[in-house]
Amino acid sequence: VQPPLLIDWAGREFVQLRPGIHAATVLSDDLTVSMYRYEPGSRWEEHSHPEDQLTIVISGEIVFRTPDGELRLRPGQQALIPGGLPHAAEVGDAEVSTLNVWPPRGSGRP
Amino acid sequence: VQPPLLIDWAGREFVQLRPGIHAATVLSDDLTVSMYRYEPGSRWEEHSHPEDQLTIVISGEIVFRTPDGELRLRPGQQALIPGGLPHAAEVGDAEVSTLNVWPPRGSGRP
Repeated sequence: VQPPLLIDWAGREFVQLRPGIHAATVLSDDLTVSMYRYEPGSRWEEHSHPEDQLTIVISGEIVFRTPDGELRLRPGQQALIPGGLPHAAEVGDAEVSTLNVWPPRGSGRP
Repeated sequence: VQPPLLIDWAGREFVQLRPGIHAATVLSDDLTVSMYRYEPGSRWEEHSHPEDQLTIVISGEIVFRTPDGELRLRPGQQALIPGGLPHAAEVGDAEVSTLNVWPPRGSGRP
């Protein structure tokens, strides 16, 4: 038995996943949790994955785009992106941090 | 295909799970997402469940206690509570909102 695990991102390695977008990830048996740090002006091209994705904005503002619309999220707001839905993300002139949660990767619905 | 789902808690029903603790829940195929609103001075007694739990503090401060220690979380901070670990939660003189994420309930490790 161990105390609740504060996720201390400062002590974790961030890797650059896209130009100006850095991520650190914590894996548990049941969840995949990633902190994304977006540099100003960075963007993630449209992509999709079979797993549902929960995104919580920690700081800054981010815009998600899908084939059907866009959604601007502010700090504390959350989006639940259904598995299989193409989505892109873009940030403005300020740094943005988002927390992203998936099931264990590879466990997604077909 | 639908736009990313902003989770609009204002439009959802909150139910009282413990005295002074109210929750609304969004279920997806892969994730269980609940917003908890704690009234000042409310507490959740020690309990456990087989699923890992991610808690993100949206506003206010909350203290988690386990048999081995306590952890105070501030806005934006997160804890990952391993499945099976007994934990209690307590808030002080201010309202607290936390977002909690589990896998689909019942899918947890034995």
